[in-house]
Amino acid sequence: MTNRTYHLVIVGYGGMGSYHAKLLEDNQNIDVIGTFDILEERREASLADGYKAYESLSAVLSDSAVDFVLISTPNDVHKEIAVAALNAKKHVICEKPVTIYSEELLEIMEAAKRNDRAFIVHQNRRWDEDFLTIKKVYDEKLIGDVFHMESRVQGANGIPGDWRHLKVYGGGMLLDWGVHLLDQLLYMVDSKIASVYANLSYILGDEVDDGFQVFIMFENGVTSLVEVGTTNFIQMPRWYVKGTKGTAVINDWDINGKMVIQNLAEAVEAPKPIKAGQGLTKTMAPPSEKAVRSTDLPKVEQAMESFYDNVISVVEGKAEPIIKNEEVLRVLRLMETIFISAETNEIIKDFDYVNSESNIK
Amino acid sequence: MTNRTYHLVIVGYGGMGSYHAKLLEDNQNIDVIGTFDILEERREASLADGYKAYESLSAVLSDSAVDFVLISTPNDVHKEIAVAALNAKKHVICEKPVTIYSEELLEIMEAAKRNDRAFIVHQNRRWDEDFLTIKKVYDEKLIGDVFHMESRVQGANGIPGDWRHLKVYGGGMLLDWGVHLLDQLLYMVDSKIASVYANLSYILGDEVDDGFQVFIMFENGVTSLVEVGTTNFIQMPRWYVKGTKGTAVINDWDINGKMVIQNLAEAVEAPKPIKAGQGLTKTMAPPSEKAVRSTDLPKVEQAMESFYDNVISVVEGKAEPIIKNEEVLRVLRLMETIFISAETNEIIKDFDYVNSESNIK
Repeated sequence: MTNRTYHLVIVGYGGMGSYHAKLLEDNQNIDVIGTFDILEERREASLADGYKAYESLSAVLSDSAVDFVLISTPNDVHKEIAVAALNAKKHVICEKPVTIYSEELLEIMEAAKRNDRAFIVHQNRRWDEDFLTIKKVYDEKLIGDVFHMESRVQGANGIPGDWRHLKVYGGGMLLDWGVHLLDQLLYMVDSKIASVYANLSYILGDEVDDGFQVFIMFENGVTSLVEVGTTNFIQMPRWYVKGTKGTAVINDWDINGKMVIQNLAEAVEAPKPIKAGQGLTKTMAPPSEKAVRSTDLPKVEQAMESFYDNVISVVEGKAEPIIKNEEVLRVLRLMETIFISAETNEIIKDFDYVNSESNIK
Repeated sequence: MTNRTYHLVIVGYGGMGSYHAKLLEDNQNIDVIGTFDILEERREASLADGYKAYESLSAVLSDSAVDFVLISTPNDVHKEIAVAALNAKKHVICEKPVTIYSEELLEIMEAAKRNDRAFIVHQNRRWDEDFLTIKKVYDEKLIGDVFHMESRVQGANGIPGDWRHLKVYGGGMLLDWGVHLLDQLLYMVDSKIASVYANLSYILGDEVDDGFQVFIMFENGVTSLVEVGTTNFIQMPRWYVKGTKGTAVINDWDINGKMVIQNLAEAVEAPKPIKAGQGLTKTMAPPSEKAVRSTDLPKVEQAMESFYDNVISVVEGKAEPIIKNEEVLRVLRLMETIFISAETNEIIKDFDYVNSESNIK
């Protein structure tokens, strides 16, 4: 890695801002040299944590010691801060969702290009072990060709009681958690999207969605169900994935789960009918013992650079960004499409085509 | 009950035919007096089981001793047999799916009316304990107002290797298992359907569907996901139901499951953030211990008459059919709509309206 130490200022010192400060405590290449927040209490928290509290955003941007601005404010002001920071020749790291509207991201991308500075979105859940485990199952065909994936995150605590339950700040679960699950799915499945159908939930009576289910069909034949819920008092598995030779499941964040795979080599006995409600069923009976085997999920090694190592490599011209802005843009547009699908209760089939032209620019 | 004993002949002495024979062994009101099957081996099986083997369908229909004809043939000949039996002044019990096309059922219903005979479809899974348990949760608001239901039946044995994997006989999982799950759902949720979206699976390469997912929204706001799979090596819960005050789950045919319900009376502590992949989350953390309570599923008493008791009550004019032909017709039309939705990959919103007029006749 580099010998240089880069200086970073955190803009927005709330939950995520202080999370990044802790994350960077042991980083060899990046020093957090200060924060800026519009709230007095957050400035005090910053000082208490040992970080200089800048008086204004312009004070941050005019400080030539600052190499990086990290944006962890509510979503509605990401663009304004990002463009100003890029124009001030700072590199920018931005929390997700990058912006509420894709047009804003295009503006940021143009500003980054114009100023020759890096703009990288913190889609940290590409490094999640549960995701990387499923990606390995998918890539290495450990259950055959995957043809259906269900990715769920379910809680019972409702929407967090801060700006995330207000529309103007870009609240709601699609933008908060959906952005991760959709980013993971699109990063994994290398195919254009054939159709999108979504149902957003407003059961808590908030003005933003408290969860959603979205069905995405890909042109390569993979179908998927992505779900976020905040009114789920019992949790379904984090991942449920079907392949031509087996099924994989990850139950929770601790990566409890398994794969059950067809034993094609063994002579397959017919399954024995079971009593199911008022009838017998052979179709839904468990396969005979020899017909399947249950195995552990694969172990993943973190072969990718860490998020912050990659940020430094990108800035120094040594690597491509792991999180490409074009990918972030596609996810943002997918979320816009999901909102439209849910509002109209219609299937949207031209997603990757209406957007492909402006993707190029 | 009645003092009379009714005589019943089973037409189609395969898996379901012999299942009915066993089911009726102890019935006080109905005697199985014979069977008819086009296959010699099934006639021999009938004789071995102690039932007279009629030589032809017309021999059954011209036998004045026969009160009931039970149809358990492949689906494509249900209508022909049913209409002939009704015209011969027999009462008819018919296996599900009643017919492949709704027009055929209308013909049967007209024949039943014209001949003043009962025609009753064996939608036996309305008596399934798992279903009645969820229906009780729904009707009695045991988890508050139910707003989302998921009903799944998943196996790993593919489509049974008989006529059920051929299109001409009305094979496929939508017609085989879907008819039950949809019948249960529509029997439970007293509302018009607002929209239908379906994806059929053909992953096994059969000419009929080996499973499906269908998303149904009701006008009363209830959303539902109904799924049948035959390529699921790991099974998801049979029922997953969300209400405004809790969640209910039934894992399997043995009715293992639970309800988790909000403790509104208790002071609710904020949930503690948990580590989830590369981040912390309070939203998806388990609720604090006092915020919820886990309880057993309710016990159901079989308050309804049994299927065959109801059949006798209907014939004797003492009760309405539990399984009304108009309900069966609606489910059949829903399946037709599901086929169209899946073929076109479109949402269908006018289901209960285009069909309402002909429902009346």
